[in-house]
Amino acid sequence: MAVAEEAIAIGRRAREAAGALADLSTELKNQTLVAMAGGIEARQEFLLAENAKDVGSAGDKGLSKAVIDRLTLNPQRVAAMAAGIRDIVALPDPVRQVTRKWQRPNGLEVGKMRIPLGVITIIYEARPNVTADAASLCMKSGNAVILKGGSEAKFSNQAIGDVLREACVQAGAPEDAVQVVGSTDRAMIHELLKLEEYVDLIIPRGGEELIRFVAANSLVPVVKHYKGVCHVYVDSDADLDMAERISLNAKVQRPSVCNAMETLLVHEAVAPRFLPGVIDRLRESGVEVRGCEKTRALVDGVSPAREADWHEEYLDLVLAVRVVADMDEAIEHIREYGSDHTETIVTADRGKAEDFVARVNSSAVLVNASTRFNDGGELGLGAEIGISTSKIHAFGPMGLEELTSTKFFVFGDGQVRN
Amino acid sequence: MAVAEEAIAIGRRAREAAGALADLSTELKNQTLVAMAGGIEARQEFLLAENAKDVGSAGDKGLSKAVIDRLTLNPQRVAAMAAGIRDIVALPDPVRQVTRKWQRPNGLEVGKMRIPLGVITIIYEARPNVTADAASLCMKSGNAVILKGGSEAKFSNQAIGDVLREACVQAGAPEDAVQVVGSTDRAMIHELLKLEEYVDLIIPRGGEELIRFVAANSLVPVVKHYKGVCHVYVDSDADLDMAERISLNAKVQRPSVCNAMETLLVHEAVAPRFLPGVIDRLRESGVEVRGCEKTRALVDGVSPAREADWHEEYLDLVLAVRVVADMDEAIEHIREYGSDHTETIVTADRGKAEDFVARVNSSAVLVNASTRFNDGGELGLGAEIGISTSKIHAFGPMGLEELTSTKFFVFGDGQVRN
Repeated sequence: MAVAEEAIAIGRRAREAAGALADLSTELKNQTLVAMAGGIEARQEFLLAENAKDVGSAGDKGLSKAVIDRLTLNPQRVAAMAAGIRDIVALPDPVRQVTRKWQRPNGLEVGKMRIPLGVITIIYEARPNVTADAASLCMKSGNAVILKGGSEAKFSNQAIGDVLREACVQAGAPEDAVQVVGSTDRAMIHELLKLEEYVDLIIPRGGEELIRFVAANSLVPVVKHYKGVCHVYVDSDADLDMAERISLNAKVQRPSVCNAMETLLVHEAVAPRFLPGVIDRLRESGVEVRGCEKTRALVDGVSPAREADWHEEYLDLVLAVRVVADMDEAIEHIREYGSDHTETIVTADRGKAEDFVARVNSSAVLVNASTRFNDGGELGLGAEIGISTSKIHAFGPMGLEELTSTKFFVFGDGQVRN
Repeated sequence: MAVAEEAIAIGRRAREAAGALADLSTELKNQTLVAMAGGIEARQEFLLAENAKDVGSAGDKGLSKAVIDRLTLNPQRVAAMAAGIRDIVALPDPVRQVTRKWQRPNGLEVGKMRIPLGVITIIYEARPNVTADAASLCMKSGNAVILKGGSEAKFSNQAIGDVLREACVQAGAPEDAVQVVGSTDRAMIHELLKLEEYVDLIIPRGGEELIRFVAANSLVPVVKHYKGVCHVYVDSDADLDMAERISLNAKVQRPSVCNAMETLLVHEAVAPRFLPGVIDRLRESGVEVRGCEKTRALVDGVSPAREADWHEEYLDLVLAVRVVADMDEAIEHIREYGSDHTETIVTADRGKAEDFVARVNSSAVLVNASTRFNDGGELGLGAEIGISTSKIHAFGPMGLEELTSTKFFVFGDGQVRN
């Protein structure tokens, strides 16, 4: 079959499954999730064997050690995949939730009710656990999912997909609720991006290049996750011990992720007391510090931060530091150089904290807490399918609710318009 | 200046204005709206004179009578424009509204707060009142707006834009909160669609061709409004007098709009009692009826409905009628042929009504009320900037809330991640 026809056939099957999924009870969706988790555990040997094929050819393809590590399954990771699916069972079903109700002067009772989006396509890279994570979130939210993983995880993704589809059939859900795209033809991604008639949303998960490619070529709406240039602002009224703990955690605990701090902004009134100590601690953890002139005047051996540093998402043990005159200057810096992802203020002044929260429009704005909490699990969404850095549809971590839309419903007793 | 550079300059100015708008108090935004309404009234003569230039050349361009009517301003329409702006003053400001709050086991207080989207581009056709409507909704929701109207309303749109910008300056809001694109170069629309760095959302308002063009060519997210193939289903338990009133209103009261009924579905148990009378009434109002075989067996002179009729958005005094075996068949018909816009069930059985509401996922699902109520004003949103028929970001009429996004906010007391 030609690639274009294959893509359309996948889209049609997904659309049909979505119709059936929208009607499923919470109970049946939960039973399907339990069957999925049980299937992943029961078929562990099969999954590891298929994964070994991918890992085996990964070396030949010249993939990096980090990519091979992300690709590799072992019994612990398979168990974690099953546990992740079971976690979704306990979350509230967003579908048919009434989010608001009101009455009109003519007696009409109006409300808004959550409904599934319909069909969601996920385009992702090396991690095979995304297959199970995304499929289970889509099942719970009543959406059919089309999963297009990277060719380096081809056997693993197909095997996980087979197990999840078996679970759907076993529990009485539509088999095509979950489809793993087998084709590794480069043209397939292009065809998937054209399925506007069948697909409601595309979520690309991977590097910036992949996301920009999908956004530029898709006829289907795309939720984008670009970079996270996250800031911590230490205010003149900050508890400086707390500020040090938060700064260290935000930079060092896991520097390679999008919600790690990249730039530290410090009020000039506390910079002389705060910066020497915190920079010492950061260096003890292996962090290279680049600073503005004021920072360099306060601490020895800080290399100069250039204009490009304020824009940079290092994703590494590197930090840019800038001394600012006040909170206004900190907010200006964030607006100029930030990526609308995550910002923290450390201050004991509740008024300033509320002002910062009101004025900074990043996807998460925190007071006296590490930037690392901008994560679906940590914020209490239960799980996340991704983080959106664009404001359309969803902004920040996307959980089950963000995989739904809302419809209006109206109860009348014969009203007509004049 | 080249068109591409002009577009980028417009985008930059809008982005800058958006930063200032996000900080404005509700009071200042309301004062700006009051100044806008006052300006429209005070400058009526200027607006009518500029409008006369457009209307004068409309004949030369061979525009239809209907288009010229939509284009024409008169004192009543100018007064209505000012009144429409004043209506927005009374609506609640969605910005900084906290939509939800919860607490995490580690003590973090988490919530979601509404924020402006940022910059919105509206691309529209002949009606100059859209300029004032869209600008006032964007002002209240804290968004900067780029308005690209049709060349046939060039002088009118520019004049309205000038008056609104004067009002912004007078009230202390940024002048570039409202920009009317003067260029009528065809290439300008293409350039506006590329401004992903500066624009958050594009709303095209006009015919399906315009909307498809924008959706296919835009790098910026687009809210789409395709056709409305709206259904009324008359159930076996319907009050047939009510069903007749609703059917007539849905078809006849204003047949040219998207929320008018296009197909009437009737339960076979009541079809013999219901159809002859309602079809008589419809014909008295000038409606041409096309029906399925069962309909034709019950009523004389009904022409046969073909497959294409079930898909058709007539926007005219034409109606397709089909007799169905039960509610399931009605829902199947709606899923097969509907456009996810508006559907009504007429029934006295509350259980069936709730089942219909739960299972039909159109943007508005009504019980015992005319389809014509799917409208921002009628549903109580105060005003609407458009109706979305896609489920991403907003579904159905879009009011002020739908012109916002939400951010997460977090108050902690020093929490860090382990």
